[in-house]
Amino acid sequence: VSDAGKRATPEVQLEELCRGAVDVQRGDELLAKLRSGRPLRVKAGFDPTKPDLHLGHTVLMQKMRQFQDFGHDVVFVVGNFTASIGDPSGKSATRPPLSDEEIAEGARSYAEQAFKVLDEARTEVVYNRDWLGPMGFADVIRLASRYTLARMLERDDFKRRYAAEQSIRIHELLYPLVQAYDSVHLKADVELGGTDQLFNLLVGRELMRDYGLPPQVILTTPILEGINARVEGGAIVGDKMSKSLDNYVGITEPPREMFGKLMSINDALMFRYYELLSARSKAEIDADRAAAGRGEVNPKVLKVRLAEEIVGRFWSPGDAIAAAEAWEAQFSRREVPDDMPEITLALEGQAETLVARVLAEAQLVPSVSEGRRRIKGGAVKIDDAKVADIQATLGPGTYVVRAGKRAWARVTLEP
Amino acid sequence: VSDAGKRATPEVQLEELCRGAVDVQRGDELLAKLRSGRPLRVKAGFDPTKPDLHLGHTVLMQKMRQFQDFGHDVVFVVGNFTASIGDPSGKSATRPPLSDEEIAEGARSYAEQAFKVLDEARTEVVYNRDWLGPMGFADVIRLASRYTLARMLERDDFKRRYAAEQSIRIHELLYPLVQAYDSVHLKADVELGGTDQLFNLLVGRELMRDYGLPPQVILTTPILEGINARVEGGAIVGDKMSKSLDNYVGITEPPREMFGKLMSINDALMFRYYELLSARSKAEIDADRAAAGRGEVNPKVLKVRLAEEIVGRFWSPGDAIAAAEAWEAQFSRREVPDDMPEITLALEGQAETLVARVLAEAQLVPSVSEGRRRIKGGAVKIDDAKVADIQATLGPGTYVVRAGKRAWARVTLEP
Repeated sequence: VSDAGKRATPEVQLEELCRGAVDVQRGDELLAKLRSGRPLRVKAGFDPTKPDLHLGHTVLMQKMRQFQDFGHDVVFVVGNFTASIGDPSGKSATRPPLSDEEIAEGARSYAEQAFKVLDEARTEVVYNRDWLGPMGFADVIRLASRYTLARMLERDDFKRRYAAEQSIRIHELLYPLVQAYDSVHLKADVELGGTDQLFNLLVGRELMRDYGLPPQVILTTPILEGINARVEGGAIVGDKMSKSLDNYVGITEPPREMFGKLMSINDALMFRYYELLSARSKAEIDADRAAAGRGEVNPKVLKVRLAEEIVGRFWSPGDAIAAAEAWEAQFSRREVPDDMPEITLALEGQAETLVARVLAEAQLVPSVSEGRRRIKGGAVKIDDAKVADIQATLGPGTYVVRAGKRAWARVTLEP
Repeated sequence: VSDAGKRATPEVQLEELCRGAVDVQRGDELLAKLRSGRPLRVKAGFDPTKPDLHLGHTVLMQKMRQFQDFGHDVVFVVGNFTASIGDPSGKSATRPPLSDEEIAEGARSYAEQAFKVLDEARTEVVYNRDWLGPMGFADVIRLASRYTLARMLERDDFKRRYAAEQSIRIHELLYPLVQAYDSVHLKADVELGGTDQLFNLLVGRELMRDYGLPPQVILTTPILEGINARVEGGAIVGDKMSKSLDNYVGITEPPREMFGKLMSINDALMFRYYELLSARSKAEIDADRAAAGRGEVNPKVLKVRLAEEIVGRFWSPGDAIAAAEAWEAQFSRREVPDDMPEITLALEGQAETLVARVLAEAQLVPSVSEGRRRIKGGAVKIDDAKVADIQATLGPGTYVVRAGKRAWARVTLEP
């Protein structure tokens, strides 16, 4: 790919690089930079306080890798300046100031994960405290004088908070300028970011112009939805992938967990993941979607192929195949999975309790009555023996309980 | 005064210090501080870019002096930090960054003038760049995090400009915090300022509290109107005294200029000047105003006394008497003044021109027809000879021209 990539014409590069991007400002400037023939400096910033990468982060990294495959250089900016300050207003318990050791460890872990996608040889890792730290109060005043309050309040979250009379602290107005100044210092040709970063990237563009530099081209990537996204009226609706919402696939998760999470997404989301995460071309993905729509291909087959591709990328093709086999064994051949949840329930003085109630309390079904329906439908097994009677009970002990195709648990009933 | 002042009870000090103040926050806190018995640290800040003091500045300085006379210490903060930055947005041509030499010279000149009012022994001159200069970007972020945008936009001029969609640059939001941080650093007990500084002084109060310090008491003085202020409906209406509006009395102006400017103010403004500038008590001033109202005293006599007091303060009692005599000679005994304006007019090919026209072109009267009226009224003299004919003309030459009590010029008519 790399050698072919480096031979690509500026026009071909432009088309491929803009593919899947949400915002590009501006394509003509990017083309002119590509035509210069020199390797471009492609900047992207990362927060070392959150070193656990998930697939959502890799959408951007795939785009960075694409630039590298065309012979350009990535400048990977570790935001250790603000991380070392934390939340100075003390309002956010989740943003304590980090020590230098914590930042170094976070950045090291981040880079290690990132290099599963990026080409290490074409990546320069820089720390923005190196140039922001020595700036004095007078430098900050000069920097802040280059931007107006009105323009800063155009940012969506500021506008919303200001209108809602929610508190905005003065230092928050400085942060977009911090990020923008990084671009000035690094003389970035291009800055990449998620589409939620659009405003900050544009400030960088303006600030560079104000400092007499050619403005960076900005290119944003879509935000990947979490694995629990739903489909409503044909559209995908759901929160973005996020660790705190527990709807993520971490890129260091073991192959089987990664595979299982990817197999749990719905079919519409699968095609979205194909578009944002797969190396397959748009044409191939469109053809698969059409074939699935006509019933010519089972979506499960496509989903297995996607999960194998992604697990293979972060682990190895062998790991991907093993994970696929384990998944098939668990869910398709109905074998007892190795890693089912362990649940302990208290009988609270009673000698026995209803199986239907155990199913509900173990959260394998939403209610006791749904438990009874499952028993009636023949879907419930205790230690591999089917339960036929909706009045069946269990006493103290440990049981493998199943309430359907994917609802398993190892339940211990304590006296 | 000084020894008596130092023996004054806290209650007497409080009453005298609050006399003439516009805002005091808070009187009970000031009383508690005065009761501590220790000398208070009374802060006031000055801009070394404008080292020419006028009477408007001395209103505040008289208040500072009053504190000193009660045994307290003035901390005179030279704002060399922002002066060394100038206007970084480059929008104001009047605020170029100053060199260290210019700042030192400005501060020296400022202090020299200020010590005509202040007690040098009880004044500590400090430069805020000494503590603001070493602050880094991270320190600025921590400082800025202590204040919200909403509170900052409560400042009158920000509110007005924001509502009018006029540009506010981000660094302008930092300046009130700069001034407020000075109070934190200096652990000020009291900050004094003009009433237009109220917002900034209050920010200092809040910031000190936020840093765990006892908040400074703030006390503001009225803004003195310029010598051209008018009276409308019994109220004084006019711009504040300002060098750029040329309605000021500079404290280094020669005694005769100072005296003449003070004699030119109208009677209502004279009593305002008495209240804000004179050492006389409120009771004495009220008695004089009442006597003038009843026609028992000529306001001109009171005005001469005020002008003598002020000239005497900045020069000497002897200088004041000499200035008064010169003024009387010029305006009361109608002698030709030494320093009348020199005006040159062109005859533009004509052999002669009307005296009435000369009066108008020399701006001694507003129009040619007013010139004719003055001639008819017998108020016009050329080289001390009264002009009787409204058709009188003048040829090339230099003439002392008078069109009334105070309208004099030395006019040269060029062929």
